[in-house]
Amino acid sequence: MSCYQGNKLHLSIFGESHGKAVGMCLQGVPAGLTVDFDQLQAFLSRRAPGQSDLTSSRKEADIPEFLSGLLDGHTTGSPIAALIWNRDVRRADYDAIRDCPRPGHADLTGHIKYSGFQDSAGGGHFSGRLTAPLCIAGGLCLQWLAQQDIQVDSRLISLGNSTDPSGFKLVIQEAQQQQDSVGGIIECSITGLPVGLGGPLFEGMEGKLSQLLFAIPGVKGVEFGSGFAGSTWLGSENNDPYILKNGKIFTKTNHCGGILGGITTGGPLVFRVAVKPTPSIGKPQQSICLSRMEPQVLEISGRHDPCIALRALPVVEAVAALGVYDALLAN
Amino acid sequence: MSCYQGNKLHLSIFGESHGKAVGMCLQGVPAGLTVDFDQLQAFLSRRAPGQSDLTSSRKEADIPEFLSGLLDGHTTGSPIAALIWNRDVRRADYDAIRDCPRPGHADLTGHIKYSGFQDSAGGGHFSGRLTAPLCIAGGLCLQWLAQQDIQVDSRLISLGNSTDPSGFKLVIQEAQQQQDSVGGIIECSITGLPVGLGGPLFEGMEGKLSQLLFAIPGVKGVEFGSGFAGSTWLGSENNDPYILKNGKIFTKTNHCGGILGGITTGGPLVFRVAVKPTPSIGKPQQSICLSRMEPQVLEISGRHDPCIALRALPVVEAVAALGVYDALLAN
Amino acid sequence: MSCYQGNKLHLSIFGESHGKAVGMCLQGVPAGLTVDFDQLQAFLSRRAPGQSDLTSSRKEADIPEFLSGLLDGHTTGSPIAALIWNRDVRRADYDAIRDCPRPGHADLTGHIKYSGFQDSAGGGHFSGRLTAPLCIAGGLCLQWLAQQDIQVDSRLISLGNSTDPSGFKLVIQEAQQQQDSVGGIIECSITGLPVGLGGPLFEGMEGKLSQLLFAIPGVKGVEFGSGFAGSTWLGSENNDPYILKNGKIFTKTNHCGGILGGITTGGPLVFRVAVKPTPSIGKPQQSICLSRMEPQVLEISGRHDPCIALRALPVVEAVAALGVYDALLAN
Amino acid sequence: MSCYQGNKLHLSIFGESHGKAVGMCLQGVPAGLTVDFDQLQAFLSRRAPGQSDLTSSRKEADIPEFLSGLLDGHTTGSPIAALIWNRDVRRADYDAIRDCPRPGHADLTGHIKYSGFQDSAGGGHFSGRLTAPLCIAGGLCLQWLAQQDIQVDSRLISLGNSTDPSGFKLVIQEAQQQQDSVGGIIECSITGLPVGLGGPLFEGMEGKLSQLLFAIPGVKGVEFGSGFAGSTWLGSENNDPYILKNGKIFTKTNHCGGILGGITTGGPLVFRVAVKPTPSIGKPQQSICLSRMEPQVLEISGRHDPCIALRALPVVEAVAALGVYDALLAN
Repeated sequence: MSCYQGNKLHLSIFGESHGKAVGMCLQGVPAGLTVDFDQLQAFLSRRAPGQSDLTSSRKEADIPEFLSGLLDGHTTGSPIAALIWNRDVRRADYDAIRDCPRPGHADLTGHIKYSGFQDSAGGGHFSGRLTAPLCIAGGLCLQWLAQQDIQVDSRLISLGNSTDPSGFKLVIQEAQQQQDSVGGIIECSITGLPVGLGGPLFEGMEGKLSQLLFAIPGVKGVEFGSGFAGSTWLGSENNDPYILKNGKIFTKTNHCGGILGGITTGGPLVFRVAVKPTPSIGKPQQSICLSRMEPQVLEISGRHDPCIALRALPVVEAVAALGVYDALLAN
Repeated sequence: MSCYQGNKLHLSIFGESHGKAVGMCLQGVPAGLTVDFDQLQAFLSRRAPGQSDLTSSRKEADIPEFLSGLLDGHTTGSPIAALIWNRDVRRADYDAIRDCPRPGHADLTGHIKYSGFQDSAGGGHFSGRLTAPLCIAGGLCLQWLAQQDIQVDSRLISLGNSTDPSGFKLVIQEAQQQQDSVGGIIECSITGLPVGLGGPLFEGMEGKLSQLLFAIPGVKGVEFGSGFAGSTWLGSENNDPYILKNGKIFTKTNHCGGILGGITTGGPLVFRVAVKPTPSIGKPQQSICLSRMEPQVLEISGRHDPCIALRALPVVEAVAALGVYDALLAN
Repeated sequence: MSCYQGNKLHLSIFGESHGKAVGMCLQGVPAGLTVDFDQLQAFLSRRAPGQSDLTSSRKEADIPEFLSGLLDGHTTGSPIAALIWNRDVRRADYDAIRDCPRPGHADLTGHIKYSGFQDSAGGGHFSGRLTAPLCIAGGLCLQWLAQQDIQVDSRLISLGNSTDPSGFKLVIQEAQQQQDSVGGIIECSITGLPVGLGGPLFEGMEGKLSQLLFAIPGVKGVEFGSGFAGSTWLGSENNDPYILKNGKIFTKTNHCGGILGGITTGGPLVFRVAVKPTPSIGKPQQSICLSRMEPQVLEISGRHDPCIALRALPVVEAVAALGVYDALLAN
Repeated sequence: MSCYQGNKLHLSIFGESHGKAVGMCLQGVPAGLTVDFDQLQAFLSRRAPGQSDLTSSRKEADIPEFLSGLLDGHTTGSPIAALIWNRDVRRADYDAIRDCPRPGHADLTGHIKYSGFQDSAGGGHFSGRLTAPLCIAGGLCLQWLAQQDIQVDSRLISLGNSTDPSGFKLVIQEAQQQQDSVGGIIECSITGLPVGLGGPLFEGMEGKLSQLLFAIPGVKGVEFGSGFAGSTWLGSENNDPYILKNGKIFTKTNHCGGILGGITTGGPLVFRVAVKPTPSIGKPQQSICLSRMEPQVLEISGRHDPCIALRALPVVEAVAALGVYDALLAN
C-alpha cells in the first residue's frame, strides 16, 4: 500500500505523475500545532523540478492546496489533506514507453503486477513526482520537530565517483552531455533528539527509518553510523566509549549513529542513503517491444534529471522527519 | 513493539535472555502446510550457541516446544506458538553490568527508556538470544518457500577486513586472542521468486525486508543489488538491459538486486547486510558507574561470541524468508 | 484515526463539514475493476442532503471528483482518491455553538480533546457530512461485490416507535413540527457470500463489521442474526439446524445471521443497527455557556435532518460493503 | 488473525481447547507497573470451569505461567507472555463431532475455511477456552486501570427470558434439566474515565469496544447507552442535557453511555452485550454426516455450560479493560 502506518501518524500518498493531482492525507497529528506556509513552500521548492539546468525541465510550481485539518494557521487534530495539481502534463511523451519498458524503472514489473491496467505515463504512481506529497507531510513534521529544537540536515557526500563537493556540478554536466546520469550518497543527521525513541527488534529506529527511506524511488542502500565500514572494524574500535560531561553521559564517538539497541542515545542520529543514477537516460539501451516480443533499442527523450540524488535531499529529510516525529509522538 | 505486522503474517516475539523462555507466536499461516521438524531443528542448530570455539560457550540446545497451531505435522490455520526454554541461565554474571552499561549495547538506552525496570541480565529482551524464536518463525517460512521452489541462501562476503573466506577463521581467532571482536558482511540471495511481489512507495520489497533485517541486533546497514557501489556508477552502467531468452524477458545483469519500483523482477533478490563487531569484548573499555555517576573501566567477562556475524547467517535467512513468504501470501 | 485498516483495503477519510472539501483515499483495490460512475452517483444521491422536506435543506450535489487510481473507467491498482467540494458552506451559522455545546453532539468532547483547536463549524470532522466520502468508497465496493453477485440491501424496520413502514413519514413530520427528531433501526442483509470469510476471535465478521458500523455518527447499537432477542431464547430455539438441499448443506433457519464462529456460513449475513434520533433539534435544551461557565438554554436553528436514520441507509450499505469486500479480498 | 492491534497495546492469543496450552502475548505495556498475582488469580477463577453445578464440569485450575515481561512483581516494558497448560484434556470426546458439525458452532464453517486441517477437538481455537488467556491480558489491564481509579463492573441484567436476578439460577437449572441452554444480557459500566478517549469515525470508542466484545464467542449484539431502546425515543428525550455541578460540566442523564462523537464524556461508559444460549446442548438436533453427506441426529454429550453468559461476565470486563486501557495509553 502507498500508506505509512507509524505508531501515531498515518500517511496516505496518492496520485500519478501525469494524472490530475498528487496528494497526501496525514492523520494522527496533535491539535494546536502552528504551520508556517512560507517555510513549507521554500522546502517544497527545493524538491520541485525546473529550477536549474541540472534538473528536469518539467515546470511545476508544487504549491500545495490544503483541504482539511488546518484552521487559522494551526492544526485542528483532524486529518490533514493536501493536493498539488499537476500542471505541466504531457501524457503523449510516454506512449512509446508503454510498449517498451525502460531499464531500471518499474515499467515492466508494474505492467505485470497490475496486468497492464496501471497508469504508465511518466511512471504513474511509481514516479518520483510522488515524493512531492511526501515532502508536504515531511515538511510539516520538520517544522514541528524544529519547534522542539530537533534539526534534520542532509548533504551529498558523494556524486558519481566524486567525493569533492566542489566537483559535483561538473560530474553532473559530464553525465548530461553523454546523455547519461549519475547517482550519489546522501548523509543525514538529526540533532536534538531525546534518549529513548524506538525500541528492540521490530521497534528499532533503524528499521523504522529504513522502511521510510527505501520508499523513496531510487534508494538502494541505507546504513547507520559506521555502517558497512564499521563491519570491518574491531569491536574495540567500533564501540563508543561512555564519557561524562557536566554530569551528563555522552558517547565519546558516534559510530552507532545515535542508536543503540534500536533506541536513540541522545547523540546525533546519522545515516547514509545510496541513491542510484537516474534510470531514464538518453543513451541507447537494450529493451523489449512487449507487443511483438522482440528486442528493441530504446532512446528515452523527455525531461529527466541527470541526477535524482540532488532533488532527493529534501525527500530524505522529509521521510526522516516523518519517522522521527512519529517516534517522538509515541514516546 | 516486538511484533512484526506483515501483510498476511503476524509475528510476536517474547522472552528475555536469562528469563524462563524465549518464544514466538506466528499468525496468518494457511492451514494444511507440512512441517519437517528435523529440518527445522537443523536450521535452529546453525544459530544455537556453544557449538564451536568460535561462538559463545553458553550451552543451549534450542529445541522448540510447539504449543499450538500444528496437528499431525501440518498447520491448522490457527496461531502457531512455540517456546525455547532457557536452560543455561546465569543471571549473576550480569549484576555488575546493571550499574555499568556496556558500550555498544542497549544497556544504557534501555535503562533510560524503561526507567530502570527492564530485565538487564544478558541484555534481557535486547539480547541476540531473541533471534532464536525469530529463527523458528523464519525456519518454518523457509520450508514453505522451498515447497514452492523458492530458495534463500546467505554467505559471509567479508569478515573484519578480510574478504577471503579461507582466512575468516583466522580473523576471528586473532580477535578472540586480543579479547576483541570482529564484524562482517552477509550477502543473501533469494531465487525462484515470481514477478510482482511488493509495490510502490511504502509497499516496496526493499523497505519491507530492511525493516526486518534491522530488527536483527547488530545490523547497521542494508543494501540491495549494486547498492552503495551502484551509486557511484553511471546510469548506463547501473541499468539492467532487458533481454529475451526462450520467449521470456530477463535482465541481462542484476544490479537492481531483483527489485524494480519496489517490485520483484523474477530475478534473484540480492541484498547485503552489515553486521557490527560484537560489542561485548573482554578488552577494558571506558564506561560510567551509574549509581555514583563516575567514570569506570569495564572488562566484560562471561560467554560472548567474538563474531556475531557467523551466527547471524541463519537469522538473516529467517527474516528474509518471513518477509518474502508474507509478500507471497499477499500476492 | 479517521482511517480504516482492513485486511487488504485501507481507507482514509478527511475533511470538515464547512471546510473546503470532504474526501477519501482508498488503497489496496485490485487493478482492472470497472467503475460505473452513473450508478455511483445514484448511490451518493441517496445520501445527499436537500432532496426532500424530510431531510436537511443544505444543498449539496455531492458529485465526487476523482483524482487518482482510475483510468479509462477501470482501477489502476494505485490509490483511489476522490473529493467532494463543499458548496453550501455557512460557517457563521455555528458561531454561537462554539461557546455553547449542543447536547448529544461531539461539540464538548471534541472541544476538550482538541483543546479548542478543532474546527467546530457544523461539527467539523465529526459531522455526518463525512459519511459522503465513506459512501464513495463503499459505493465502489458495492459495485465490485455486485460483479461477484453479492448484494447488500438495507431497510428501516422501525422509525421512532413505529414499526409500520407506511407510517414512517408521519412519524418524521410529527417530530419535525415539534422541532424534535426521531431515531430508527436499520436492517441490512448481504446475500451471495461464500462460506469462510472472517475467522475466530478478533478476526470475526461481527467485530469487523461492528467497528465499521459504529464509525457512522449516531449508531449506538449493532446486533447480528437473532441478536438481543436471541439471548432470551433456549439453545434449541436459537441454534440453526443443518439441512441438505440438492447435495449442499444449509441452515434451516438463520438465527446466527449468517455468521458462525466469526465466519460466514454462506447464508444471508443479517444485522441491525440502532440509529439515535438526530441530536440537533430546535426545541430548547439545557446547555452551558463555556466562556462564562453558566447554564444556557440552547435553541438550535440551521438546517438539520429530523431523522438521520433515513440518510443512514446508504451509509450502512457502504460500510458493510467495505467490510465484506475487504474480507473477500483477504480470503 | 487472533491478534488485537490497539493504538498502543498488541495482544496475540493462541492455543486450542484440547491442545497443550492456551496463552497470550501482550505488548506495549509501560515498564514499572505492578501486578498483584493473587488478585489476577481470583479474577481468572471467576471464568474458570468446574466451579459450580451451573458450569461445565471440566476441571481446569487456570493458573497462568508467566514467561516474560515481568520481574520482581512489576512490568519490564518488554512483551508479557503467559500460558495456561491444558490439564483435563479429552480429545476422544470429540471424534464423533468431526464428522457431524454441531449447530450453532464453528465446526462447519471452520472445517470449510481450513479445508479440514483445523483442530476440531472441543472447538479447537474457536473454543470458549480461548477466553482464558484473554482474561489474563484483561485482568492485568483491570489492575492497571484500578491503579488510576478506573473501575470496570458487569452484571447480568437478563437470563433467558427472566430479568429478575433472584430467578436466574432457576432459569439455568430448568434449561439444564431439559438438556437445553439459555442466553443472557450483560451490562457493563466503566467509571472514572477521563474526558477525551477515542475520536471520530473509525477511532470511536463504540467501534473500538465492539470489535473486542464481538471477539468473545457467543456475543451477537452490543449497544451503548440507550442503544436500541434510544432509537425509539425523540431527540429531546435521548439527548443528555448539560448541567454544572461544583464548576464542572456533567450530563444530567447518560443516554449516550458516556460516549459522544466516539469520545468519552467523563461519565460512566455503559454498554450491554447479548450472549447467545450455549450452542452445545444435549437435546437431539438436526445435523449432517459430512462423510456420507446424509442427515444425522446429533445428541451432544460431554461437559458443557448450560449458560455461557455466566462465565462471560469476567471476559466482558477483560476485553473492556483492554480496550479502555489501550485508549488511555494512547491519550
